[in-house]
Amino acid sequence: VPTTRLETFADGVFAIAATLLILDVKASNGVSYAAYGLSFATIGIIWVNHHTVMSQLGAVDRAFLFMTVFFLMTVAFIPFPTQLVAEHIRDGGAEARDAALTYGFTFVAMSISFAGLWAYASRGGRLLKPDADERTVAGITRSFRPGVFVYLAATLVAYLSPIASVCIFAALALFYVLESSLFARDGGRA
Amino acid sequence: VPTTRLETFADGVFAIAATLLILDVKASNGVSYAAYGLSFATIGIIWVNHHTVMSQLGAVDRAFLFMTVFFLMTVAFIPFPTQLVAEHIRDGGAEARDAALTYGFTFVAMSISFAGLWAYASRGGRLLKPDADERTVAGITRSFRPGVFVYLAATLVAYLSPIASVCIFAALALFYVLESSLFARDGGRA
Amino acid sequence: VPTTRLETFADGVFAIAATLLILDVKASNGVSYAAYGLSFATIGIIWVNHHTVMSQLGAVDRAFLFMTVFFLMTVAFIPFPTQLVAEHIRDGGAEARDAALTYGFTFVAMSISFAGLWAYASRGGRLLKPDADERTVAGITRSFRPGVFVYLAATLVAYLSPIASVCIFAALALFYVLESSLFARDGGRA
Amino acid sequence: VPTTRLETFADGVFAIAATLLILDVKASNGVSYAAYGLSFATIGIIWVNHHTVMSQLGAVDRAFLFMTVFFLMTVAFIPFPTQLVAEHIRDGGAEARDAALTYGFTFVAMSISFAGLWAYASRGGRLLKPDADERTVAGITRSFRPGVFVYLAATLVAYLSPIASVCIFAALALFYVLESSLFARDGGRA
Repeated sequence: VPTTRLETFADGVFAIAATLLILDVKASNGVSYAAYGLSFATIGIIWVNHHTVMSQLGAVDRAFLFMTVFFLMTVAFIPFPTQLVAEHIRDGGAEARDAALTYGFTFVAMSISFAGLWAYASRGGRLLKPDADERTVAGITRSFRPGVFVYLAATLVAYLSPIASVCIFAALALFYVLESSLFARDGGRA
Repeated sequence: VPTTRLETFADGVFAIAATLLILDVKASNGVSYAAYGLSFATIGIIWVNHHTVMSQLGAVDRAFLFMTVFFLMTVAFIPFPTQLVAEHIRDGGAEARDAALTYGFTFVAMSISFAGLWAYASRGGRLLKPDADERTVAGITRSFRPGVFVYLAATLVAYLSPIASVCIFAALALFYVLESSLFARDGGRA
Repeated sequence: VPTTRLETFADGVFAIAATLLILDVKASNGVSYAAYGLSFATIGIIWVNHHTVMSQLGAVDRAFLFMTVFFLMTVAFIPFPTQLVAEHIRDGGAEARDAALTYGFTFVAMSISFAGLWAYASRGGRLLKPDADERTVAGITRSFRPGVFVYLAATLVAYLSPIASVCIFAALALFYVLESSLFARDGGRA
Repeated sequence: VPTTRLETFADGVFAIAATLLILDVKASNGVSYAAYGLSFATIGIIWVNHHTVMSQLGAVDRAFLFMTVFFLMTVAFIPFPTQLVAEHIRDGGAEARDAALTYGFTFVAMSISFAGLWAYASRGGRLLKPDADERTVAGITRSFRPGVFVYLAATLVAYLSPIASVCIFAALALFYVLESSLFARDGGRA
């Protein structure tokens, strides 16, 4: 199976990035618990979606591999802005704003690279497997479209209120988990 | 095999969480050796049990994936209370109690999310594989029932004696390993 | 498949080395972002190439396993010189030079051990799979030849200008990704 | 394949323990480079041998899983004494001796648990696969016998000279790699 080794590497990066988050939890900082939970859940969501994308591919080429490396670079980056948010979100002022902006733009970069990956793989069916499920493919394409803009909007809220920006990311994660578990039964079998 | 990639991700989180424990062992702190051993062994037990659960499933859906992410979030959290216990259990007073409570409630949360995962997968045979072994399925269900309560009781002991609470967790781990290796031959072949 | 477990171990080391890079990114050090990006991308490139090499092998022997362990030792070393470069490249003087030299020689050592691995496996077809693709095998051999010398030259530039040396590594990585994605369609399907 | 998931978990622990070693390399401490190289190589050797052992097994039971957890606990412990040796071996006196003893006893514990694992699996062919290779099985049994004693002797040398003790571990690793690559062609194909 030609996509297997890519998945092993990607799963490793997902698992390590998520697990490293614990290194920044401090007993003296209550916010760090919430930041841990939010970033872990978000990495989990990205992992589930990456799973869905890979399940529709039959092969990968070098350009796709390098695009995946870039995408994983944004995923592995997540522990850094998580720590910034945990440390500074309650400080107010420029530090809180910069932390929230770094957090948000990491997810904007992640969603752009993820959408690019999918666009490359699906355009003209380039890397799709012969028996790729048309409805799932269309569903993935449809769901990528608003993603970047929603993340960008949530990020820009940090100029008004850094805390509100991070709370919107939390709400989006919660909404996504509930919505895709309860309602989006298309292609729900992973 | 539709459950394969979930297992790769989960095994990564188990392996990393267990291996990160070494970062908190300090030569100047004898308790940190015992805390390392206890948490490593407990993560190993959870991993073995997760192994047994997954071996009975034929497929997973999105809700199950997200429940697994939540479950793994509690597993990846374990190095944090382990460090608290290693540092504070001998201090006595509120610090020792809070360390033991954080340790215990992490395992309560883990066992609730693990039991929820299994209840979701097994109810009405939802995600069981067609040839799931009935005795193993019944055995898993039976063994989950007391787990949460035993862990909760062990945790609450910390209000009386933090050290006793942690020792009960150690005794439970030891008992579990011996009991399931020596006596529970049902479904013992993993 | 006899090479599978070797790949799992190697992929683990690649994924962890890349993900650990985030631990050295500091908000107060703008260079650390660039160093993160460069080293992550370079580890990604090595991983892709290792992938290509392994795809041509049918079996591995003990000597090959130990050579792989040595190769992975150089890969897992990368986070250390990356941190040195991030901290010292702007200091000028001996510290910047030593950082750039340590960075460069790590990649020289990596490329020597990687070339040795391939020479051992491919000489006389020793470990090649029966249906190894002749053009891919010849292409790998051809591409290893200049690698060590190019890295060595880039490293020695650090005696003149440490920053220039690191920039050449960045240019090589960028060139490699673009060239192998866009032009090198031989054996491009991974 | 019933042993697959055990190998994924074990390979994760091996890869993470080896890669975490880089966190203790310090530019200001030349010994830390040698300690990194020695412990990485030794973990690589243990991994190769674990690989050989697992290749002869057909199935695992719960007792074997828990014995493996204990064995991996000793492997994941290696970064800790490695750091002690890197920091204290040149101090002389009690600190150097304690560092070398901790280093040595970690490997004694590892080799005891590894030998126990193999004794359990191979006694009466309990977990061997039906087509296990008799010569390889006998060869593994033979090579485990002296291991514990050699490691114990090398450890006790630390009472006379801590540096000599660590150098013996280095010589054993080097000898093992050369010997098993060049001469031990029995079962050499992994």
